[in-house]
Amino acid sequence: MTLAELAKHLEAELVGDPDVSVTAVAGLEEAGPGQLSFLSNARYHREFAATKAAAVIVPLSVKAAHVPLLRAKDPYYAFARAMVLLHGHRRHPHAGVHPAAHVDPTATIGEGTVVYPGAFVGPRAKVGRDCVLYPNAVIYDDCVLGDRVSVHAGAVIGVDGFGYATHGGVHHKIPQVGRVVVGDDVEVGANTCVGRGAIGDTTIGAGTRIDSLVQIGHGVTMGRGCLIVAQTGIAGSVTIGDYVVMGGQSAATGHLTIGDQAVLAARTAATNDVAPKAVVMGDRALPIAQGRRALVAFGHVPELIERVRKLERLLEARGTQLEQPVDGGPH
Amino acid sequence: MTLAELAKHLEAELVGDPDVSVTAVAGLEEAGPGQLSFLSNARYHREFAATKAAAVIVPLSVKAAHVPLLRAKDPYYAFARAMVLLHGHRRHPHAGVHPAAHVDPTATIGEGTVVYPGAFVGPRAKVGRDCVLYPNAVIYDDCVLGDRVSVHAGAVIGVDGFGYATHGGVHHKIPQVGRVVVGDDVEVGANTCVGRGAIGDTTIGAGTRIDSLVQIGHGVTMGRGCLIVAQTGIAGSVTIGDYVVMGGQSAATGHLTIGDQAVLAARTAATNDVAPKAVVMGDRALPIAQGRRALVAFGHVPELIERVRKLERLLEARGTQLEQPVDGGPH
Amino acid sequence: MTLAELAKHLEAELVGDPDVSVTAVAGLEEAGPGQLSFLSNARYHREFAATKAAAVIVPLSVKAAHVPLLRAKDPYYAFARAMVLLHGHRRHPHAGVHPAAHVDPTATIGEGTVVYPGAFVGPRAKVGRDCVLYPNAVIYDDCVLGDRVSVHAGAVIGVDGFGYATHGGVHHKIPQVGRVVVGDDVEVGANTCVGRGAIGDTTIGAGTRIDSLVQIGHGVTMGRGCLIVAQTGIAGSVTIGDYVVMGGQSAATGHLTIGDQAVLAARTAATNDVAPKAVVMGDRALPIAQGRRALVAFGHVPELIERVRKLERLLEARGTQLEQPVDGGPH
Repeated sequence: MTLAELAKHLEAELVGDPDVSVTAVAGLEEAGPGQLSFLSNARYHREFAATKAAAVIVPLSVKAAHVPLLRAKDPYYAFARAMVLLHGHRRHPHAGVHPAAHVDPTATIGEGTVVYPGAFVGPRAKVGRDCVLYPNAVIYDDCVLGDRVSVHAGAVIGVDGFGYATHGGVHHKIPQVGRVVVGDDVEVGANTCVGRGAIGDTTIGAGTRIDSLVQIGHGVTMGRGCLIVAQTGIAGSVTIGDYVVMGGQSAATGHLTIGDQAVLAARTAATNDVAPKAVVMGDRALPIAQGRRALVAFGHVPELIERVRKLERLLEARGTQLEQPVDGGPH
Repeated sequence: MTLAELAKHLEAELVGDPDVSVTAVAGLEEAGPGQLSFLSNARYHREFAATKAAAVIVPLSVKAAHVPLLRAKDPYYAFARAMVLLHGHRRHPHAGVHPAAHVDPTATIGEGTVVYPGAFVGPRAKVGRDCVLYPNAVIYDDCVLGDRVSVHAGAVIGVDGFGYATHGGVHHKIPQVGRVVVGDDVEVGANTCVGRGAIGDTTIGAGTRIDSLVQIGHGVTMGRGCLIVAQTGIAGSVTIGDYVVMGGQSAATGHLTIGDQAVLAARTAATNDVAPKAVVMGDRALPIAQGRRALVAFGHVPELIERVRKLERLLEARGTQLEQPVDGGPH
Repeated sequence: MTLAELAKHLEAELVGDPDVSVTAVAGLEEAGPGQLSFLSNARYHREFAATKAAAVIVPLSVKAAHVPLLRAKDPYYAFARAMVLLHGHRRHPHAGVHPAAHVDPTATIGEGTVVYPGAFVGPRAKVGRDCVLYPNAVIYDDCVLGDRVSVHAGAVIGVDGFGYATHGGVHHKIPQVGRVVVGDDVEVGANTCVGRGAIGDTTIGAGTRIDSLVQIGHGVTMGRGCLIVAQTGIAGSVTIGDYVVMGGQSAATGHLTIGDQAVLAARTAATNDVAPKAVVMGDRALPIAQGRRALVAFGHVPELIERVRKLERLLEARGTQLEQPVDGGPH
């Protein structure tokens, strides 16, 4: 594909020779002739200066360079489209349900859906069209997946929620009769676990993307277009709005609500509701600016203790005359 | 089942028409005619007020309402029993070992045990009676499971512990010759990993319930009736008593002891022994009241630094006369 | 094997009867006649004093005892070698690729490699010699494993990285065309997930050992001889040097660099580069001594707030005369 063609497809502005052709995408350092690269992050300016790529996708703010440029308004999106144009998505080694997969006879699988070896689809489960169940993905009984859903290797949809009634020293298992209902265009990462509802359903909205090793508890209601990064844990009955971002290893306590478009930085622990559009961080889910200050300040506490001790000594040295009016006065 | 019958089974007090019949359990908001609901949490009082359920299981403290009530001493346990009465536990789609499971010829599987497709039971492993090994669960060689043990999809029992002796720049693998021995009535969540002992066994006591994505290190001794919530990590050789609760994403450092009935709040990191019945939280595993105060105070540290700075300036402004007696006196 | 033979093999100094023979290794408390034990940790001195083992491997500092000793310069390494001598490594129940494994016809598997039931090796993937792929391990398309690599049950190598370009409210999936390239002698724990590179490769250096439930993001470059403990999460494009240790539940933010031989204590969150050989801990990845002080101090913040409040009251009680010079003077 020539740069001229690519520029047209990507709606990017070409600075350089339109007849140069590219066949693949590569990193700034690895790219050579015929390879398109991408300036993803300002910290890579040195690699950009030294790149031998045939062309580089850049933001509009980059005016000119030693290398042909594809200047795009949304350069990351242009890069994504270039990846699809030049490389395409994965071509699966087989179509339909592989004989080494196990689909219960009462389950239904939509047209165009690929089920890899070792994947399991339980009784009465429904998988939509054009889905991909990667090797050893497990869909428990009665769960429902929309269209174009990808479930990566080892992910488990619909495991029993962690629900017990403790009575007489025994943790009595509560039958988990809810389902997991997953909307269209959802991607679920490897070894992620989604618990089925105890009585209602656990739901995941359309277009939501979930990374690997995430835990989603029973009865969670998750909106559309969320991004849930690896190792995040969401306790039971949490309500998550649309377009919520939860950074890696973050968490939400049971029964709370996270508003639309809220962002939880990596490793945030939300123990109270999070307002829509709030950007929070840390063990107290503080607003990000306050959370950053608190985190930096945390390292200064030992020194602060010393400073307070010094002030106390200074005042102690002045002794009685300082204590008296305080002890005698109102608090 | 009529409310009268249900009240008898649940040992609950019926307030309302005994002949009303219920066939299923549903959430307060979703429930309609013929459906029983449950007031699980005071925060749902609004949903309770508006419910269209045929009846609601409530604590004894709820006296009367717009809806028939089943008043129970332990309403959560009554709810659990109602779930079993009306819905029952999962009916498995096959009995015994599924042909797509792999059980080593030297392994033994007890009567009534269900092994799903893709599950693996290694050489010489022993699985008791009435167990369930869900799809792709893996039991390594020589491990032992009691009776009525459930191992959910993708869980791994008996993986090698993380044991190496580093010598001459090489991490030499130490053969992990211990087993994992799991007591009766244990449930293990999806994709949870339990390491086998290096020389002794890793043991999990009867009635303990483990959620998804939990890591249990090699040589851990865990008591009876524990509840280990999702994504918790327990390092090697930790000793955990009976009826210990570890909240989600909590952790225990290697070789320590957590006493009977101790409770670690979600995301606690225990780096020292925890006393029996202690309730602790946070990165220092502080007693819960102190830990909460410290967590709240944490957000105020930047402001506190400012306040100390102001005090220092006030005293500096008074200068020499304050410094002298302190510098001249004993510390 | 006699103690004399064992001492020779382990290059240890024997204190005791050279003709005593041992056949197995056991813990200090469990060991009896014919069993060798090991003093792993000074905290086990009581168990050492009471042991009935036939002999105990100890550091050179232990001079004499009630029991034959094998005194070794590096006792942990001597213990590891004794384990190999007396117990050996796991004997697999079959050779080569098990018929219930799924290896794509375009994949290549080296001589001596064992592939367990349920393991999956995708199109064009290459697995070296003498590797072990445990049950339900998944190697995605095009990934490369060196020689003597072990991938434990349920681990996933080469899952798509979490890469989306958000445009017009849609998270557009970026094809992840890089691979995962794993060096020789690497061990990967159960249910660990390694993301494939978006364009370049994710690489793991020779001799690195990774525990269970670890998340390694796309485009990570990890050096040789690292130890990555359970539940650690490494975000995309992180560069990790050689012989880095990351404790359990630790984390590194995207695009940063962790220098050779750096040590991150359990649950450290590195959000900035970590210098070679640095030993860091906590949410700010502070140097370990400072981090420990800060963590201890954290518990004292509520009390510190009280102390500052008292100082403020003391000074307020002296009122105007203190305020005046400060307000009038320069800050």
